[in-house]
Amino acid sequence: MDRSHNFSAGPSALPMEVLREAHAEFFDFAGSGMSALEISHRSDAFVELAHQAEQDLRALLKVPAHYKVLFLQGGASLQFSQVPMNLLRGRKSADYLHTGLWSGKAIAAARRYAAVRVAGSSEAAGFDRVPAVADWRLDPDAAYLHYTENETVHGVQFPATPTASVPLVCDACSSLLSKPIDVAKHGLVYAAAQKNIGPAGVTVVIVDEALLDRALEITPDILNYAQQARADSMLNTPATFSWYLTGLTLKWLRRAGGVAHVHRANAAKAALLYRAIDESGGFYVNRVQAAYRSINNVPFVLADAAREERFLHLAERAGFRGLKGHAAVGGIRASLYNAIGLPAVEALADFMRDFQRAHG
Amino acid sequence: MDRSHNFSAGPSALPMEVLREAHAEFFDFAGSGMSALEISHRSDAFVELAHQAEQDLRALLKVPAHYKVLFLQGGASLQFSQVPMNLLRGRKSADYLHTGLWSGKAIAAARRYAAVRVAGSSEAAGFDRVPAVADWRLDPDAAYLHYTENETVHGVQFPATPTASVPLVCDACSSLLSKPIDVAKHGLVYAAAQKNIGPAGVTVVIVDEALLDRALEITPDILNYAQQARADSMLNTPATFSWYLTGLTLKWLRRAGGVAHVHRANAAKAALLYRAIDESGGFYVNRVQAAYRSINNVPFVLADAAREERFLHLAERAGFRGLKGHAAVGGIRASLYNAIGLPAVEALADFMRDFQRAHG
Repeated sequence: MDRSHNFSAGPSALPMEVLREAHAEFFDFAGSGMSALEISHRSDAFVELAHQAEQDLRALLKVPAHYKVLFLQGGASLQFSQVPMNLLRGRKSADYLHTGLWSGKAIAAARRYAAVRVAGSSEAAGFDRVPAVADWRLDPDAAYLHYTENETVHGVQFPATPTASVPLVCDACSSLLSKPIDVAKHGLVYAAAQKNIGPAGVTVVIVDEALLDRALEITPDILNYAQQARADSMLNTPATFSWYLTGLTLKWLRRAGGVAHVHRANAAKAALLYRAIDESGGFYVNRVQAAYRSINNVPFVLADAAREERFLHLAERAGFRGLKGHAAVGGIRASLYNAIGLPAVEALADFMRDFQRAHG
Repeated sequence: MDRSHNFSAGPSALPMEVLREAHAEFFDFAGSGMSALEISHRSDAFVELAHQAEQDLRALLKVPAHYKVLFLQGGASLQFSQVPMNLLRGRKSADYLHTGLWSGKAIAAARRYAAVRVAGSSEAAGFDRVPAVADWRLDPDAAYLHYTENETVHGVQFPATPTASVPLVCDACSSLLSKPIDVAKHGLVYAAAQKNIGPAGVTVVIVDEALLDRALEITPDILNYAQQARADSMLNTPATFSWYLTGLTLKWLRRAGGVAHVHRANAAKAALLYRAIDESGGFYVNRVQAAYRSINNVPFVLADAAREERFLHLAERAGFRGLKGHAAVGGIRASLYNAIGLPAVEALADFMRDFQRAHG
C-alpha cells in the first residue's frame, strides 16, 4: 500500500494499527454478526464500547471524578454556541481571549447569547503571539473565561494554562490528547475528534458537573450538556462508527504510552520542522514568536510568495497531502497530529531543503 | 461470515454490497493513499463525493431545483429544534400533528421557540391511527404544518401526504427513500440516515430555498439552514465517513432500481409480517388500524405478555437482532428498512410460527 503523508488540519491521519483493527472486524463487530456501522447504540456491545472509551479518555487525561465526559456531534463550531447556552448560568457576560481565527469565531458565535468581553487580544500584532498576561483585563463577574489553547490557522499555542477566578473554558480542538492538560484547572474542555482523537463525527466535552443544569431556555435538548450527561451522551442516536473509531484510537494511545509519550514525539516533530524553516535563511518564514509556536500546526510562507503554488504542486506530487494553508491566511501549513510519524516530518523537511536548493 | 438478521430501529443494516465496497477501499479512498476516514472534507475527492451524493439523492427523490439538499449532523432530534429556529419566519405559531412518540417529542422541542398548536392528535386512541383529516383544525396563519410520516415506535404511517395551505414539514426519519415522497408538496423534509440512507452521523434536510434566510437570532450558525446551504453543508467539518457511506448507499439504491422498486419490496416484507401476526389467531397482536400500519416498523405484542421475554431470548439466540420494542411501549418491534432482505423477514415469520407452536 502506498500511503500518503497526510499533513491535513483535520480530518487527518489515523494510526495504521487502528485502521487495520477496524478493517479486520469490519463485517463482524464483537461477534455480533454485524458491522460496527450497523450496530445499535442501545446494544450491550456498543454501550460497553462507549463505557470503555470514556474510561480510556479519563485515564489518559486523569479526569477528576466530578467531571462529566461527553461524546457529542456537531464539531467545535457548534460548541461555540453550546458553551454560552449552557454556561452563562444567569450571568450576562463572558470573557474571551482573542488569539487567532478560531477564537474570533468563538467570540462571534457567543455574542448571540452573551455580552462578550475581549479580555485580551493579539489581533493588532497579527496573531503572532498570545497576549501578555499582564495585559489581560479579566472580569471577576464573567460567567467564564474562554481561550483557544491552539490556534489551528495561525499556529499560536498557549505556553501555559491561563489563571482565572472564573471557570476556565478551553477550546482544545487541535491539541487535546497531543499534550498534557490539567483538566482540574478548567470548567470545561472541548475538542472535535478529527485531529488527535479519532475520525470526524465526534466532539469530546469534559465539563465540571457543578456548572451544569442552568442552560438557557432556548437550548435544544440535544445541545444541553446536563441532559446529554444524564443520557450518557445518547439522548439520541450518536455517530456510532465515529465513536467506535475514537474508542480504538484511545486504546491505541494508551498502548503507545499515553499523552506524555506522544507529547515528546509531537514536540520533536514540531522542532524538526521549525528548524528546517529557521535554517532556511529566510526562504521559509514562520512569523509566530518562538514561545507561542504551535506543536500541532506549523504554518509558514515562502519569502517569495510567487513560488508557493509550485511548492504545493510538487509537494502533492511527492505524496504530501493537506499542506495548503487555510484560505484566510494562505501560505503553507503542516499539521503534526498524533498519528503523523517522525519519518513523514523528516521527509517533508528534506523536501523543503530540496525545493529550496532547486528554487532558492 | 455468519450474518445476523438486523431488525433494529436504527442504526440498522447496510447493504452487503456497500459494506464490501467500503471494505475493499478502506485503506485507499479514490487513489488518495488515505482512508475515507482520514480524507479532508476540503479535498477534491471528498467534494466530488459530496456532490455525487447530492445528485443521487436528487435523482432518487426527483427533488425540484429550487430545493436545497443538506447533509448535516445531530440527528432528527436536533431538527426538532432547527425546524422552528429556521422556519418561523417572523410568525409566532406552528401546527403539529400528534401521532405517536416522535411527533410528541417534536412538539415538546418546538414549544421552546413557537406557540405550538396541536392541529390533530390520535393520543386519546392510543396512537393506533392517523387522526381523520376532517378532525384537523389547521391554522392558516401557522408558520408551517409538521407531521411525522412514520412513527417508528408506534408503527403508524400516513397513508397520504397531508394537504395544507402553509408550508408542510415532514419528519421522514424512518421512511425517506423507502417509499416515494412528493418533495414538491413540502416546504421541508428531514431524515436521519441510519434507517434507510446510510450509517448514523448524517441527517438529510431537503428544504425549499424560499423558506430560508429568516432564522431566529438565537440560531447557531451550524444549525442555520441558509448558512449551511451557502457552504454546501460544510460550514464546519462534517462527519465525513458517514457521508461517504451514505453516498455509497445512495448509489446502491439507484443500481437496485430506485425508490419505487424498494418500496414494492418493503411493502411485501411488511405484508408478510402483518400476515404472520394476523394469522396467529390473537397470539401476536398489532393494534394499529390497517390503513395506518407502517411498512417500516412493525410493532407487536404477545397476547400473553409474560412470554415476551422468552420470545426475545430465543429470537436473539436464533440470530435475530434488535427486536425488543422501544422502552416507552415495550413489546416487540421489527424494523424492515431497505437493506433487510425478504429472506430475513421470512425467517422471522417462520420463527414466530415455531414459537407459537411451542408455546401456544
